Order: sequence, then structure tokens, then C-alpha cells
Amino acid sequence: MTAKRFALTPGEPAGIGPDLCLLLSRDRHPHALIAVASSELMRTRALELALNIDLLQVEPGSWPSEAAPAGSLYVWDTQLVTPAVSGQLDALNAGYVLETLKRAGNGCLDGAFAGMITAPVHKGIINEAGIPFSGHTEFLAELTNTHQVVMMLATRGLRVALVTTHLPLKDVPAAITAERLQRVTRILHKDLVEKFGIAKPRILVCGLNPHAGEGGHLGREEIDIIEPTLELLRGEGIELVGPLPADTLFTPKHLDSCDAVLAMYHDQGLPVLKYKGFGAAVNVTLGLPIVRTSVDHGTALDLAGTGRIDIGSLQVALETAYQMAR
Amino acid sequence: MTAKRFALTPGEPAGIGPDLCLLLSRDRHPHALIAVASSELMRTRALELALNIDLLQVEPGSWPSEAAPAGSLYVWDTQLVTPAVSGQLDALNAGYVLETLKRAGNGCLDGAFAGMITAPVHKGIINEAGIPFSGHTEFLAELTNTHQVVMMLATRGLRVALVTTHLPLKDVPAAITAERLQRVTRILHKDLVEKFGIAKPRILVCGLNPHAGEGGHLGREEIDIIEPTLELLRGEGIELVGPLPADTLFTPKHLDSCDAVLAMYHDQGLPVLKYKGFGAAVNVTLGLPIVRTSVDHGTALDLAGTGRIDIGSLQVALETAYQMAR
Repeated sequence: MTAKRFALTPGEPAGIGPDLCLLLSRDRHPHALIAVASSELMRTRALELALNIDLLQVEPGSWPSEAAPAGSLYVWDTQLVTPAVSGQLDALNAGYVLETLKRAGNGCLDGAFAGMITAPVHKGIINEAGIPFSGHTEFLAELTNTHQVVMMLATRGLRVALVTTHLPLKDVPAAITAERLQRVTRILHKDLVEKFGIAKPRILVCGLNPHAGEGGHLGREEIDIIEPTLELLRGEGIELVGPLPADTLFTPKHLDSCDAVLAMYHDQGLPVLKYKGFGAAVNVTLGLPIVRTSVDHGTALDLAGTGRIDIGSLQVALETAYQMAR
Repeated sequence: MTAKRFALTPGEPAGIGPDLCLLLSRDRHPHALIAVASSELMRTRALELALNIDLLQVEPGSWPSEAAPAGSLYVWDTQLVTPAVSGQLDALNAGYVLETLKRAGNGCLDGAFAGMITAPVHKGIINEAGIPFSGHTEFLAELTNTHQVVMMLATRGLRVALVTTHLPLKDVPAAITAERLQRVTRILHKDLVEKFGIAKPRILVCGLNPHAGEGGHLGREEIDIIEPTLELLRGEGIELVGPLPADTLFTPKHLDSCDAVLAMYHDQGLPVLKYKGFGAAVNVTLGLPIVRTSVDHGTALDLAGTGRIDIGSLQVALETAYQMAR
């Protein structure tokens, strides 16, 4: 296998992102991982963690073609505005965080990187800095001029994509339109084929209502919107099963024969995925022209600098990015 | 341990309920199980399954005080209107089904039975017979003059109770009122203490919105309704944690330290429970003056008479009823 280059963004400098990247660098990886981060931050955090990691400076024009040896990490130095202290958010560094994302995203677009893997950012502190920011996904959609993206969470053996994401529950039913369902399903199907190499993906689709509406007795969206839309998409050659009741869909009989589940909303699909994949789940943004995966947890400010963290989710995020960038 | 008597209702005579009760009777049980059913149905179904089960007739005035030996089942004969054929629904027998439930429920009320365990009924065929019927739970609530009941599903290691049950998703947010949340939480707490023998139950409560509303950014019901209601209930001595995001609540860190989860709606709580407890989950009705548990699956008409069924859910339903009737 030829080594590829992937960008790794440690995200919020006061959180556990830098720690995760350093802990990960104790081992050799199959590809070259380039942390887009402050070298100074990485150096001081390594000291705090008593980790002996060689930080190898790289930059455009001097990209490595080999994976770094065990105990070392490539760093594309990106300057902080003010020194970062573990656990202490500072709005002065909000611009730094976004700069690392821009560098990584643009590097994916121009071919320097085969994909990017993101550690958590802290939305609140970026907003406090007066910068409108609603998350990695939206930021990268804008950076890459992408109209519609799809959030998918994955763990070993299960992928769950969402038709709607961060909406108040009361706004969910109206957001389940034929148009949105078509767009999301097509993106999911296309990326399963093109990025995950699944020739003929089989997708299980949840209903919106309990018992998938039970023939209209518990809601009509299945009959009025979901069923006709799935029928239309089947006509395009997409293999779709459903709409199925969410509480019977997530059982071995159904899951064993599918490549992904499409849930209508956040809390219908993600509790099972996170239960099954606890500590080893990854967030994948579909529909982008680049490969992007992310850990599924937050900045865990109180654990930054302690070393008492689990790199399981970041490892799955790496594995998934490698798989998508084949 | 002194043997108690429990009523077992096989439910729809064309479904797998009679089969489950017969398969179960191959073994000896710690308590006397009394099938409230047609003796003729049980006899012909046993022949169909090639099971040699002694059917021991009992009735009010001649209740057994011992568990039946292995290979036998007590039956309180309840007449069918027309012979039941495996897999073929017949509206003529709808009245029979309800009569078995009435006998079991009244027997619990008058002390003949310590509890009742129900196999599935078929709502549709009862309605076709012109009898309004929306489920066991509602039927038993009415029979026992109970205003508010709470649906709880349980499997080994996890209990999930619901604030709302079979509502279209669009009607859920408005149904999450302070009053309903108070009533449901108090019933859950009371029954965990009184029926499950947990001195100081610890209950985890889900938010309504994704990320439990994220401080109001993704919905205000947590701030306006759920948080103040939980605070009020804490003042009554109920130990409540939350509101928590559903996708982080259902992880070992939280679940290991709780006695039950209170989910706001059906598809928020039940997919994880059924994923975890596949084939071994039980439906418990809380708030009734009697003990009632049920299998969590349907009539499986196509499997009646075949023997290719799993009695796991019925076994957990029995265990749970024994536990509740201590």
C-alpha cells in the first residue's frame, strides 16, 4: 500500500484534541498524518503528558511521502494568538482554530491531503469571539461550496445517516419533505458506492412515527411522503428497505443484511449507534467533495493534559478516512 | 419460596400465544401458571406441535397451590366461539380473547392471581369484530379503573419507561406537559419502589430535543418544562438525573448507575432497548393496581403451529412478573 497524506486537526487547543493526536503518535500508522496545529502547543502538551513525541515540521512544498516513524508526528505549524492552557477556553484563539480547518480543507481540495480527520472544536468559544460558526460540517460545506451534506455516524458494523440533524424535535416533521429525503438518500447512496466501495448498497429506512405510522393510525408522513419517495428512488436503482419501525429495524435480523440505516432524526438513530459503538464511533460528513471524518465526542476540557482519555473514536475516524480515500 | 399463582393469557388463538404457553410447559416453573384459554385450543395446538403436555383443568374454587409438574399446564377453560385455526384470524373469536383478559384481570384484583402475563392479541381483528380496543394496556386500565398507566420495556440490565407512547411524532412536543411528566415520573418511581423493591431508585431522564436542547439552541422544552418539573419532583425525594441527551445517556457510564431510563417518546427509548434485549424484552404496565407483564412481540400468525419460535421474551415476562409480585 502506498502511503497517503491525511490532515489531522486537533481542534480546540484547550481541549483533548492535541492530547489525542500525541497519544496516537506513539504508534506508527499506515499513512502520513499531518497535524495542522501550533508546534508550540503540541510541544507543551506533550511535556504536560510526559510523552516523548518527535514533532517533525512540514509545510506546503515539503510534504512527506512516508508515514512518520513510531513516536513522531508531522506538524504543519499554525500560530496561536495566545498560548493555550489545558482546560481554559480563550476566545483569542478562535481564529486559530478556524485557520487549521481552512488549511486542512483547502489541502484536501488541492490534492495535498487524501482526507481530513477532525478532533473536537468548541462552538461556544468561537461564537463568543464574534464569529458565526455552527459546526465543522457547516464550515466545511461552505469552504467547499457544497449545498447539501449528510451527517452519518459509524461504528464497526453499523452506519447511521440522518435526514435531519440539529433541529428542535417540534420542527422535525415539517422538515421531512420529499425533496430533502431525495437529496439525502441520493448522497448517502452515492457516497456508499464511491467512497465506501459498496457496489450495490442496501439501505434500511426508518419511518418518522412510532411503528412507522402503523398504516396511518400513528401519523401519515409514511404514506404521504416517505413511501412514495422511496418508490421513486427505487426507480433510480437505489436499494431501499422500509419505512420500517425504528424499534424493530435496529435488531440483528435487519441490520445483518444492510450497509446503512437512514434515520429521520437525531435521537431516533444515534442512541443505538452510540450504545453499540461506545467510545469507537466516528462522524462522517457525506456529500462533500473531500473526505472528512471526525471523532464523535466533545472537547472534554476537564481531561485535557491528564492523559486519562480514550483514543478509540479517533482510531475509528482514521480507519474510516483511510477506507473512504481508497 | 411459597408458590404463587399467575394467570397466563395466550391471547389471539390463531397466533403463537398458545404455542408459547405450551412450549413453556415442558419445564417446571417456580409458581403455578394458569393459562386462561380454551382447553380445546390448547389440546389441538399441542397435537399440531407434537408436544405431549398434560392439560390440568382448574377453575375458581379449585385453584392449585403448587406449581404444575414439568410437562403439564393448568388451564382455566374459556370457550371459543368457533374453532381456532393456526394462522387464520377469525373475528368470531374476538369476544373470547377479551373474556380471557377479563378473567385474568379480575382474578388479579380479587387475589386469585399474584399477577398476569399476556401473550399477544391482534388489535385489528378485535376492531373488525366491532369492538373498540386499542391494546392490552388501555383495556386493563379501564378494567381496573386506572386513570394513568405508564409503559415500560425491560430487558436484563435495562428498563426504559415512556412519557408518551403511541402518538404521531408531530404530537409529541405538545404532549410533554409538566402535569404529564409529573404523573408519569411519580408512577415510575412508586412502582420501582413498591413492585421492584428498589429502596431509592435512580432515574435517568432524556431531554426532548437533540443534545437535550443544547442550552435552548435546539429547543426550549428542557428549560421551560422538563428542568423545572424534575426540580419539583426532586423536592419530593425522587432521585432524577437529567435531562440528558439521549445519545449520550444510553452509554455504559450512565446506564451502569441507574435503575430506569425515562424517555420522552417511543422511538427515543425503544430502539436501544430492543437492540440490547433482542428476543428477551418484556413490556410492563406500571401504575395498575395489579401486576401485568407482556411479551414485546406480535402474534406472528405465520409461525403459529410451526414450533419455530423463541420463548425468550415470555420467559423474561414471567421472571419480571415474579419479581414484581414478591
